[in-house]
Amino acid sequence: MNWLDLLSAEEQGLDRNEPMYVRITSGIRKAIQSGQLADNSRLPTNRELALILKVDRSTVSRAYLELSQSGLIESHVGRGTFVRPLSQRNRSPNPLHGDGRELSNDVASGISAMNWSEKFSESSRAALDLIQRQPTGTEQPGVISFAGGIPTEEFYPSEQFQRIVRQLLESDDASKMFGYSAAEGSPYLRAEVLRHLKRHGIESGDDELLIVSGSQQGIDLVTNVFVDPGDLVVLEDPSYFWAICNFRARQARCLPVSLDNEGIRLDLLESHLARQAAKLIYVMPSYQNPTGATMSLSRRMALIELARKYQVPILEDNFVGDLVYSDSVLPPLRSLPGGKDVVIHQGTFSKALCPGLRLGWLVAPPEVTARLLLAKRTSDLSTNSIAQIILAKYLEEGLYNQHLEHVRLSYRSRRDAMLAALSRYFKNDKELAAQMTWSNPDGGLFIWAKLARGLSTRQFLTFAEMQGVSFSPGDIFFLNGGNSEYIRLCFIQTEESVIEEGIKRLARAMRNYLETVARSNLSEISGAARVRNNVLI
Amino acid sequence: MNWLDLLSAEEQGLDRNEPMYVRITSGIRKAIQSGQLADNSRLPTNRELALILKVDRSTVSRAYLELSQSGLIESHVGRGTFVRPLSQRNRSPNPLHGDGRELSNDVASGISAMNWSEKFSESSRAALDLIQRQPTGTEQPGVISFAGGIPTEEFYPSEQFQRIVRQLLESDDASKMFGYSAAEGSPYLRAEVLRHLKRHGIESGDDELLIVSGSQQGIDLVTNVFVDPGDLVVLEDPSYFWAICNFRARQARCLPVSLDNEGIRLDLLESHLARQAAKLIYVMPSYQNPTGATMSLSRRMALIELARKYQVPILEDNFVGDLVYSDSVLPPLRSLPGGKDVVIHQGTFSKALCPGLRLGWLVAPPEVTARLLLAKRTSDLSTNSIAQIILAKYLEEGLYNQHLEHVRLSYRSRRDAMLAALSRYFKNDKELAAQMTWSNPDGGLFIWAKLARGLSTRQFLTFAEMQGVSFSPGDIFFLNGGNSEYIRLCFIQTEESVIEEGIKRLARAMRNYLETVARSNLSEISGAARVRNNVLI
Repeated sequence: MNWLDLLSAEEQGLDRNEPMYVRITSGIRKAIQSGQLADNSRLPTNRELALILKVDRSTVSRAYLELSQSGLIESHVGRGTFVRPLSQRNRSPNPLHGDGRELSNDVASGISAMNWSEKFSESSRAALDLIQRQPTGTEQPGVISFAGGIPTEEFYPSEQFQRIVRQLLESDDASKMFGYSAAEGSPYLRAEVLRHLKRHGIESGDDELLIVSGSQQGIDLVTNVFVDPGDLVVLEDPSYFWAICNFRARQARCLPVSLDNEGIRLDLLESHLARQAAKLIYVMPSYQNPTGATMSLSRRMALIELARKYQVPILEDNFVGDLVYSDSVLPPLRSLPGGKDVVIHQGTFSKALCPGLRLGWLVAPPEVTARLLLAKRTSDLSTNSIAQIILAKYLEEGLYNQHLEHVRLSYRSRRDAMLAALSRYFKNDKELAAQMTWSNPDGGLFIWAKLARGLSTRQFLTFAEMQGVSFSPGDIFFLNGGNSEYIRLCFIQTEESVIEEGIKRLARAMRNYLETVARSNLSEISGAARVRNNVLI
Repeated sequence: MNWLDLLSAEEQGLDRNEPMYVRITSGIRKAIQSGQLADNSRLPTNRELALILKVDRSTVSRAYLELSQSGLIESHVGRGTFVRPLSQRNRSPNPLHGDGRELSNDVASGISAMNWSEKFSESSRAALDLIQRQPTGTEQPGVISFAGGIPTEEFYPSEQFQRIVRQLLESDDASKMFGYSAAEGSPYLRAEVLRHLKRHGIESGDDELLIVSGSQQGIDLVTNVFVDPGDLVVLEDPSYFWAICNFRARQARCLPVSLDNEGIRLDLLESHLARQAAKLIYVMPSYQNPTGATMSLSRRMALIELARKYQVPILEDNFVGDLVYSDSVLPPLRSLPGGKDVVIHQGTFSKALCPGLRLGWLVAPPEVTARLLLAKRTSDLSTNSIAQIILAKYLEEGLYNQHLEHVRLSYRSRRDAMLAALSRYFKNDKELAAQMTWSNPDGGLFIWAKLARGLSTRQFLTFAEMQGVSFSPGDIFFLNGGNSEYIRLCFIQTEESVIEEGIKRLARAMRNYLETVARSNLSEISGAARVRNNVLI
């Protein structure tokens, strides 16, 4: 059986808007009923089929569960999932994960297993819908990945951390490493973060600071404190994928506002705010994810005034921290006139130091901080102590600036390598020059590229992966999907020679893609593309 | 001015149901207008007034903000909060935290600072209402605390952890300590937790396990996946305070079901489930918080059948882990017949090892685990690596059982010390024998005591704190407050001699309390008690 047929709504005689799991369920049901899948034949595992179809495993699980509940397939622990023989298909449905049930008296009592798919919250459904946008096949061995945006191990200050841990073990603070931290964070780390903020122009009182378990938790707490289901949240469009997920999972209505050269468009923003009350404005003023764009100083000041005028809190996500490769650093919103009145500032060392610490912070007015602290307690009581103590010590010793210098030089060099390779293999190539344009960021992690009209980022990704290189398709960052012409390239994860090779592969992929487009019956190709997009977007 | 007068609704001429911040606002306003608080006089800080009134700081902040906005008080950075002179009170309201505003052009533009109290979500309001139940004055120096329930440092396996960290630093895994963990948790720790679960009769597939940042996050993720605003959650009554907070903050309707000797009352539960669809049943079958009660085996089996019949997922919170002081250990719900179909099992090492690790786990059917994983990503991406690697190594070396033996012996001895002291100072005291009864738990952290009719846990707490001993007032654990006759005593936090001294003080406090009741005009006292309860419950 060709499992990829399951992806096509047409093949299944289904409407294109039917969710993916319905297609899979329907496709397999037809294959069983037609005999294409024989009695007792083994189905792929969840994981296998998810990989084949490039969908989330839970999508396959859901389809299998439905098939199992209609008595068409059954699972045997340790062996796999099988087509039930025709003779048994009319017996009462059995659950997919029926192991242990023989102990139970449920057959006698006529109780069937839980239909979990009916039980999930709207929050969970909303998050799942979004997550299915994410491509799943990018982590194959040998593939050069420009997808994602996580610093690699070589840049963690591991040796210094290790020395600090050794010293902590010898000190009186050793047992503190395993104790409970107060919900607001370890006092050591709080003091160091306040000093760090001061150097960035942010004066924060002790009652304005909350340590959180990484930036994502910061977003989650702010959402918790300000956003109820149905409330309006304004975002830059495109924006950070997991922030979108978080707002959607909170059942917020997300209002996308596009960017221009200076950042979020305030004309659009004001026309929205004048019409309807928003609960939160979420922005990344510096080296925005995914575009790498930076908001100008005048735009920053005007944004604050607008937020004050309409009384809407701003969440300023400074995820990029100090990853700046030029001398022109713009002040954070919270440090600007009026910023203290409306801006909740979020920062992290995850990108400049190492992400596994899971530490970040929020700076907000005291009455907001009190609420955030309460949300923190309700979410996970407090943050892991050991990471806080190590980081506090590291900052106290003044090692951060030194490390930063090293990281900045390295990442700038990698950015330059990617820009140079893009020039060499695309801009300077007669055939490819017109196919792609890209940004030239002076900070952050990402280059944002745009394909020529008519090309699709998802189709290009397929060709790229076949050449052993991957990237993040831009559509996942747009609130309403679409925008299939963008790609996001992370330049910090791979060294210069690998970047060069990766961009070379990307050029080869582009050449293959263009040739295939030229050779193909165009209408057929774009039909397939539409199906693919319906599925994934 | 006697600030405690602010606590009394009668004094303020307000309805008894008015929230605390309204009383404070109104009381201070009257004091200013009557001249009782003179122009330019300094008000207590948030922290000071919160301590005096035993309310949350945010309650005071809210009151101060309102007073500031009506132009009655003003703050000066670094100096404090003051009564505005009469001559200035009619000027436009100024914000409480106006520092930095002189830089801004808001005066010209007529924009006032944010009125944050209007901006908070229903989730945040719900959580705040609950948190105000918690007593705040229990952490004074010299006070013997039977409140809370956090293991103390002396029982952390600090030396073994330290040796493990040292060895990790020398090993190839050193840099892994600072890397990113997959959202589902470190594979090392996952493998160890699966082994641990197996020893407790829980067979879990790899796709049924999720590592979380402590039990509280487990509750938060399950709520996220199953509960939308307005949905019904069934809880034991009384139940774990932070679980109640979490459900309320998710705007769930919480349905309290009382306990009998065998655990949650299934007759009541079924009559509810038959009438209305519930989204989740939250129970702590073993050594429940706060009562210490354990659900019988037959009740466990019947609960599972009921959940299967009405198709309601159960969250089984095994927060107590292996803190059992007898040989009769009952199997977890998830290991029982049918349990795999309906039970999400939650566990942690926080109580038996150390709480600062912030590590726990959820075991659920694969399709549920996939949703929980998604919620985890949306909440905080992934869990801190270093704590996971240390714990995995610790478990791998088989050190846990040895530690557990030590901890169990110690905690049992402390429990015995508390029971003996209660007998000596209460049961065997002619005057006090009738004033209090208590449980005799064979596991967990808590003794649950009941005061004689007519005595109030909040009044008793006041007398206890004056004698230098504290406990958790039972009312905070009941969904609808009230039940002012219970007190929860944690016996694991203090050594035997201190427990003896603490219970001795408790007896002295009881004697003082009874004398005061006898001496006083009874109707006046109980009037005051009612006010106090209205405020705090």
